[in-house]
Amino acid sequence: MIKVGIIGATGYAGAELVRLLLNHKEAEIVWYGSRSYVDQKYADVYRNYFQLVDNICRDDNMEKMAEQAEVVFTATPQGLCASLVSEEILKKTKIIDLSADFRLKDVNVYEEWYNLKHAAPQYLPEAVYGLCELYREKIKGARLVANPGCYTTCSILSLYPLIKEGLVDPATVIIDAKSDTSGAGRGAKVQNLFCEVNESIKAYGVAGHRHTPEIEEHLGYAAGKEVRVSFTPHLVPMNRGILVTAYASLSKQGLSEEDVKNAYRKAYGGEFFIRLLEEGVCPETRWVEGSNFTDIGFKLDPRTNRIVVMAALDNLVKGAAGQAVQNMNILFGLDEKEGLRSAPVFP
Amino acid sequence: MIKVGIIGATGYAGAELVRLLLNHKEAEIVWYGSRSYVDQKYADVYRNYFQLVDNICRDDNMEKMAEQAEVVFTATPQGLCASLVSEEILKKTKIIDLSADFRLKDVNVYEEWYNLKHAAPQYLPEAVYGLCELYREKIKGARLVANPGCYTTCSILSLYPLIKEGLVDPATVIIDAKSDTSGAGRGAKVQNLFCEVNESIKAYGVAGHRHTPEIEEHLGYAAGKEVRVSFTPHLVPMNRGILVTAYASLSKQGLSEEDVKNAYRKAYGGEFFIRLLEEGVCPETRWVEGSNFTDIGFKLDPRTNRIVVMAALDNLVKGAAGQAVQNMNILFGLDEKEGLRSAPVFP
Amino acid sequence: MIKVGIIGATGYAGAELVRLLLNHKEAEIVWYGSRSYVDQKYADVYRNYFQLVDNICRDDNMEKMAEQAEVVFTATPQGLCASLVSEEILKKTKIIDLSADFRLKDVNVYEEWYNLKHAAPQYLPEAVYGLCELYREKIKGARLVANPGCYTTCSILSLYPLIKEGLVDPATVIIDAKSDTSGAGRGAKVQNLFCEVNESIKAYGVAGHRHTPEIEEHLGYAAGKEVRVSFTPHLVPMNRGILVTAYASLSKQGLSEEDVKNAYRKAYGGEFFIRLLEEGVCPETRWVEGSNFTDIGFKLDPRTNRIVVMAALDNLVKGAAGQAVQNMNILFGLDEKEGLRSAPVFP
Amino acid sequence: MIKVGIIGATGYAGAELVRLLLNHKEAEIVWYGSRSYVDQKYADVYRNYFQLVDNICRDDNMEKMAEQAEVVFTATPQGLCASLVSEEILKKTKIIDLSADFRLKDVNVYEEWYNLKHAAPQYLPEAVYGLCELYREKIKGARLVANPGCYTTCSILSLYPLIKEGLVDPATVIIDAKSDTSGAGRGAKVQNLFCEVNESIKAYGVAGHRHTPEIEEHLGYAAGKEVRVSFTPHLVPMNRGILVTAYASLSKQGLSEEDVKNAYRKAYGGEFFIRLLEEGVCPETRWVEGSNFTDIGFKLDPRTNRIVVMAALDNLVKGAAGQAVQNMNILFGLDEKEGLRSAPVFP
Repeated sequence: MIKVGIIGATGYAGAELVRLLLNHKEAEIVWYGSRSYVDQKYADVYRNYFQLVDNICRDDNMEKMAEQAEVVFTATPQGLCASLVSEEILKKTKIIDLSADFRLKDVNVYEEWYNLKHAAPQYLPEAVYGLCELYREKIKGARLVANPGCYTTCSILSLYPLIKEGLVDPATVIIDAKSDTSGAGRGAKVQNLFCEVNESIKAYGVAGHRHTPEIEEHLGYAAGKEVRVSFTPHLVPMNRGILVTAYASLSKQGLSEEDVKNAYRKAYGGEFFIRLLEEGVCPETRWVEGSNFTDIGFKLDPRTNRIVVMAALDNLVKGAAGQAVQNMNILFGLDEKEGLRSAPVFP
Repeated sequence: MIKVGIIGATGYAGAELVRLLLNHKEAEIVWYGSRSYVDQKYADVYRNYFQLVDNICRDDNMEKMAEQAEVVFTATPQGLCASLVSEEILKKTKIIDLSADFRLKDVNVYEEWYNLKHAAPQYLPEAVYGLCELYREKIKGARLVANPGCYTTCSILSLYPLIKEGLVDPATVIIDAKSDTSGAGRGAKVQNLFCEVNESIKAYGVAGHRHTPEIEEHLGYAAGKEVRVSFTPHLVPMNRGILVTAYASLSKQGLSEEDVKNAYRKAYGGEFFIRLLEEGVCPETRWVEGSNFTDIGFKLDPRTNRIVVMAALDNLVKGAAGQAVQNMNILFGLDEKEGLRSAPVFP
Repeated sequence: MIKVGIIGATGYAGAELVRLLLNHKEAEIVWYGSRSYVDQKYADVYRNYFQLVDNICRDDNMEKMAEQAEVVFTATPQGLCASLVSEEILKKTKIIDLSADFRLKDVNVYEEWYNLKHAAPQYLPEAVYGLCELYREKIKGARLVANPGCYTTCSILSLYPLIKEGLVDPATVIIDAKSDTSGAGRGAKVQNLFCEVNESIKAYGVAGHRHTPEIEEHLGYAAGKEVRVSFTPHLVPMNRGILVTAYASLSKQGLSEEDVKNAYRKAYGGEFFIRLLEEGVCPETRWVEGSNFTDIGFKLDPRTNRIVVMAALDNLVKGAAGQAVQNMNILFGLDEKEGLRSAPVFP
Repeated sequence: MIKVGIIGATGYAGAELVRLLLNHKEAEIVWYGSRSYVDQKYADVYRNYFQLVDNICRDDNMEKMAEQAEVVFTATPQGLCASLVSEEILKKTKIIDLSADFRLKDVNVYEEWYNLKHAAPQYLPEAVYGLCELYREKIKGARLVANPGCYTTCSILSLYPLIKEGLVDPATVIIDAKSDTSGAGRGAKVQNLFCEVNESIKAYGVAGHRHTPEIEEHLGYAAGKEVRVSFTPHLVPMNRGILVTAYASLSKQGLSEEDVKNAYRKAYGGEFFIRLLEEGVCPETRWVEGSNFTDIGFKLDPRTNRIVVMAALDNLVKGAAGQAVQNMNILFGLDEKEGLRSAPVFP
């Protein structure tokens, strides 16, 4: 049994890690770290775990945790993981960081978009971006995995093959993303109250959301050059689920559906967690809820010579805790699907 | 592997059976029966199963199914199972009926409340009421299990111990139940459209809902005499979950919390799927969603000499498909928790 | 034009007062009082009023307000109004208090249930309980109106006529109430976050909710003796609306629907804002949303010799701001419907 | 009092017309037309109108209606209005058609996108497109007004000024729209059931939605040349509200916020129903719910040299019934705001 520690176990992503790991045959949580609920029963914070988890919340002491855990998940706001990581810790344990601290290779980009001094830039070169389907080989040997964001996973997975194969002009990429509300976290803020979110939709962070450079970095790798995209997130009144609708101009006239499918097949042909939908089928978040799947569909529009690509995933699973567990499975040489086989829950 | 057939696989309860059985190590679905979607791919009806279920929907032919399946689940409206069952079929396969056909022992009560002629009353004496925690021993040897309704499971489980132990006056029992919308089924009706259900709550079937006699029969067994209760269901804008709030006058003054707890412990002490909440904790449907748990809590009210008992369950799991799988596990001598161990999903 | 001041204009009830008063021909808001948003534009706090309200939020200074306003609404938590009211103020302005401070005649009951020292018990005898349909005549001459709570209005209106006419046994009254989430206020609390409320239902304050003694006091007036009821509130994932389902044993066998209807007609025959539904029709909160109506329906249950009474209202309108405006109209001799004529909004 | 007839009064848009007209001082509904509910009480179909509307539903006979009504609203699916209109009728009454029949000037475009033979193309030249803020003068003298669609109103209003003033390149326009569920109508379809819509988001009609040519026609007028746009609608789990997020490349570098604001001010400077939001404020559907407002905001993105324009409206008001009443007010020379002054309802 792999011994697991979680920093930030009482946030939504942390609680989802618990759910998935309870179902994992080779892992055992030995430390439920929390800032706000130290010494309280974890199952009093998340009553769904009543009689399933007996543990008490402990603090976020990564040093002690590293002595007991073979892998530490940090499901905390940006800045914390970077402030805790050290050579000593990395010698003892592997870290899968669900925050943004080690996602961007360029420390200046990080500091500009997050408005935060990076506390451990020396680990940026070593950190591996944990988008499993694209970087599996690199993840295998990593000590420090930067688990991608929810918007990012959905955006990159949907666009990467098209750009890689040169089917679209990267300069024309526009990503319109729609997110559930659990992505906003469990902090007590007026803007996330039920009555404020329910029965409404809005955009936010327009032309300035922090996931933008993360998307651009990886689409840039696909393009072989710098890429700039428009990225607009929206808040939707639902608990889970992200939908990305992305637009791009085709790089030449007359591209066929088969051309597009081939690009996706080439990239994701054998991938269990990526489902390429049949022709004319639009992904819907309800069909992936609770699971680690990303559903991808597309539609060519000859009238405008554009392609519309759509992808749906569960922000707490493939967009956070599920991909983190998938990364753990890769790190420890386990079946990548372990703990992640459950079918989506509907309705 | 136990071979399973499902009649009504394209309703919500049927689809939930599929979800749970995909996760079951000892069972395999060999027949996806449907009336409306014959010859269509099952995963086209429920796209959450895309690439997980390759089967085609077949008809509802129970005779043929009985030749291929060791157990048949009928997740259909009342009347159908009774019209199909026969000695020949019961010799070949076990039946777990999720409809109301074999729940009530008295055929007259059935015909009065359901306004339907019973097509196979000869099997009523043999049928076992599949409320696992109360009738486990009888279920073990059954050929025909009448899987309880969602409201009924929640109502009986919450009140049975109090009546059995004589703590409350059965004549004073009032059950106010609140249900999600999946319980209304997947039929295309104006009253179940999103805009009709969303942002509203209503009672329905007041003083006449068909689950009433089922509740009364089993509370009557506990009381050792005939019992009449008030039962009022309500429709709540959510996908899953039933909450029962039940009221009863205490049979004597001065009953303590410990007295009540003892009654529940006696009835459910070792039961995995029944969680007796700690003092002062009210059950909430969100804490059981997606799982087979029933959470039970209570509050004594010395001012009125009443007790308020509350219970929450997921109508599609413990209130339908989950309990059906639990019954299958009992019938086939498997670990009762097999396929049902997943923690509740929150948020 | 009546000059109006609002203390607590930035809570949900305060914002609803603004909505209704903007539509009122004889009233004009001269003071938008707030604790948290002083000096901010009111329309920045509630952007629905962008370009409709130009005012700036001011503090909660009731003395100054009393010099400018002919009537002051206090839409604040309990305790504040009692701490501010004085003879000097009451000589200058009328007060309609939406909090609980002056609802209960017995100061001991107030202090026990609210766990709060009452700061101005000397005004309790003078204060008039503003349940318009029951106490209209007393309201007319009042200086200080205690506007009833949302649960209370719905509970009292539905049960008062039955008890008054002796049709039910008051000792058997059980009130199971279901509330939207705006009733929980706009404070930033984890328990009211979208993801915590959405897709769930729970009871709370069981056998101890503060609206209980308010209901008991007024049903006691109807009964001519002290009454104790069971009252259980529930939280429902919707923005607006309260549904009460109340149970009581009939005082004699054989009561007819006509008997019951007559009791309601006698009490509410000419009342515009109370709609007695036709036979067999259950009230639903969606049919009153946004309006000042209370819809009442009932069902006799000869099997249990009980009656089930149901009532629905919009908690922010008839349950708070709407009734407050109705009280203002009575106080100033205006048409009671002024500002409150809009039909319910559906869907 | 203007006598009004409604064809399709029992759909959601028809019911909203009733709500608005009940609040209108100069109009009176004399005919509630319906196909499915003939001879039933209108208030039995929409119980929010209980005791407010006593009328019985009548059929959709436009000839008879034209004798009694000075204006007829047709709130029906495409095809019906065109099949009923005639010179005789237009001599007696004005028609405001909420369907698509007379929106597109080019009959071929209509027949291609709607896959329907147009029954009365002879009236296309005469029909006036009822987007009030753009075509007020033409509307004044019209006999036949084609009331715009909900997506269309929101899309055209947000983009028209930018194209008209040459600030953006029309060929780059991409419109990503998000709609509530009432826009899908009250028909009993599985896909619109509560459990199918709730907790999910999806795109539909990608690269082929019928509102596309309507948007293109009017943006084309602004551009002075043919325009082709990408338009993608999405379904959001809420009752009311449309949000448009539109993207376009700026026609030159260095355009300032002031340049953009001036374009909007020039187009909508004195318009009551269009609210240009302050800098950095994103429109949200909750702030316009129940009202006739369209809120417009934008954000310049120098990184990509694009502008992101956002607009929110209530699909049943400004997107259907409200604009229809606004058109009626223009047609009859009334104050354009009559019946439409109510502030948005929040929460």
